[in-house]
Amino acid sequence: MTTRKVTILGAGAMGSALATPLVDAGWAVNLWGTWLDDHLLETCRRGEPHPRTGVPLAESTSLFDAADLEGALDGAELAVLAVASVGVEEVTRRAVRGLAKVRAVLLTSKGFAPDAAGRIRLLPDAIREIAAEQGVALPAVIAVGGPCKANEVAARRPTAAVFAAQDKALAEEIAKNVATHAYRAESLSDESGVEICAPMKNVYAIALGVCDGLSERGGEPFHDLKAATFTAAVRELVLFTELVGGDIHTAIGLAGSGDLEVTGNSGRNKVYGVRIGAGESATAALAAMQAEEKTVEGVQAAPLAARLVDQRAPQLWPALPLFQAIQDILAGHEDSEARITDAVLPRV
Amino acid sequence: MTTRKVTILGAGAMGSALATPLVDAGWAVNLWGTWLDDHLLETCRRGEPHPRTGVPLAESTSLFDAADLEGALDGAELAVLAVASVGVEEVTRRAVRGLAKVRAVLLTSKGFAPDAAGRIRLLPDAIREIAAEQGVALPAVIAVGGPCKANEVAARRPTAAVFAAQDKALAEEIAKNVATHAYRAESLSDESGVEICAPMKNVYAIALGVCDGLSERGGEPFHDLKAATFTAAVRELVLFTELVGGDIHTAIGLAGSGDLEVTGNSGRNKVYGVRIGAGESATAALAAMQAEEKTVEGVQAAPLAARLVDQRAPQLWPALPLFQAIQDILAGHEDSEARITDAVLPRV
Repeated sequence: MTTRKVTILGAGAMGSALATPLVDAGWAVNLWGTWLDDHLLETCRRGEPHPRTGVPLAESTSLFDAADLEGALDGAELAVLAVASVGVEEVTRRAVRGLAKVRAVLLTSKGFAPDAAGRIRLLPDAIREIAAEQGVALPAVIAVGGPCKANEVAARRPTAAVFAAQDKALAEEIAKNVATHAYRAESLSDESGVEICAPMKNVYAIALGVCDGLSERGGEPFHDLKAATFTAAVRELVLFTELVGGDIHTAIGLAGSGDLEVTGNSGRNKVYGVRIGAGESATAALAAMQAEEKTVEGVQAAPLAARLVDQRAPQLWPALPLFQAIQDILAGHEDSEARITDAVLPRV
Repeated sequence: MTTRKVTILGAGAMGSALATPLVDAGWAVNLWGTWLDDHLLETCRRGEPHPRTGVPLAESTSLFDAADLEGALDGAELAVLAVASVGVEEVTRRAVRGLAKVRAVLLTSKGFAPDAAGRIRLLPDAIREIAAEQGVALPAVIAVGGPCKANEVAARRPTAAVFAAQDKALAEEIAKNVATHAYRAESLSDESGVEICAPMKNVYAIALGVCDGLSERGGEPFHDLKAATFTAAVRELVLFTELVGGDIHTAIGLAGSGDLEVTGNSGRNKVYGVRIGAGESATAALAAMQAEEKTVEGVQAAPLAARLVDQRAPQLWPALPLFQAIQDILAGHEDSEARITDAVLPRV
């Protein structure tokens, strides 16, 4: 029996982390680094912990530099697209011939991708269109979501992912083939729902962080406000999911409320919110994050999500008070406590 | 215009806390202490912070000792039943003539109440039956739920409650009449859904605490497992809610996932779970909590909830793997990490 091969494109936190379950599940793993990942590959080659996860790369992983994209994809049955969302389109373009030969592309990158006319697309649609422009039909895309912190995946701590594909049977088959003791994926047919929950949970995690920041500022907890904000965020995640044709169960499941739970308790979006809640201006807080080279994905996603609502369902705006409050806070509204309270407390 | 009067029965954390929004909303507030609350009333009479909330009682609240139940209820338009769940039946029996004269009973006490034959009832049914046994028809019951920490309600920090009554219009009217800047309630018709989410979220919060305890034991976070456990808990809250005829939106809203969010991050049930996750046996952890006079409501609720499933929907058991895992852990299962992981990771 030949060992099946999977190629991971992107050697950042999630790309490198997924080498662990894939190697454990018996796959031969190629890990390809983009033109920005050279230093990450170097560290891995020295056997040191990956700088983004603190965990050494799974043994037997084969490393490929940016120049050898063709070699990396050669003979692969599966590909994982795990580059930062800004790089997804460019990597898709460069890799398109190799990607065309795999059975499925697991997409862990997340975000919104405007087309040339400014129309907001979800990433699977964007990469299918990019491939089509080059005359290539992409194989099935499997949207990977759920509460998966890269460092925990890499360290074999228990993780429940979601694999969503238009062909659910394929998602199920691949979920079975990559399952380990610690890493398991639920299969769904709701590709769009999983894709929109991922960037939106980053946006809403900013508001959850603000609530924690209020506690830091005043020394008294705002647990009730955080819980009300969490609930409002789930309610709005349901609406965003339905807006793209997805299912409520995706939004209240692992890809929505599950991922929101973890993102609202740790990570960059939450930390950014904490800074604002604790009293920094949105601008100063963002500058501080950028000085630490920490991208706040929710800040990038929010205006694109607003355009998506404008383009596809402007009648939805009154049902999105928390999202509106977050936009106001990002735009400099000075009383984040009052703004969030007004958005999430019931109207009577 | 005569000031409307509300009588709060039970001077513990939640009873005393609700005096704040009720006074702020313009009500004359009577606070009655049970035969176990004398020391609490004494502290309040001295103007000191309430021992359970750390916040002084709202000014102008009138205090009534256990012996003067009749005086406390005299002329009240509303009553709030806020005694510990073990005392609900006895207080209802003693107060039934006075309760019959109010327009509505707001029920903040939560739990399961077996009848003489061992049939598990929700509290509103139990108190209606107790009143009926004494030949009294109770007025409308309003189930009060949602993420409401007593200390935050008392201190006027923003809180979103849920008021659920079979007559939703009445719940709406009362929500309007007790609303303040900080305390606001959403109105629902799903009395049973709100009533079952409250004790069950305590049960599930134990499992969330276990995940945090695993982090304490090993020094490494189990965020992914906690998020997967949270999602499984919400899924099972939906099933419990539907089991009593309630609505999915109650379970994914403030009374379910919202209250679970706050209960899984702070409070006694979570603390108890943390002890177990960190390595104590369930028995030792419970003894330690009892030594601090801290009741763990989820431990009391779990066996009653199991009987409820046995009695009304035994076919539901296979869909409640997390609840089964919690029961095993409470019964002494030694590897809480493995037991929860097995319950919440997707099956492939």
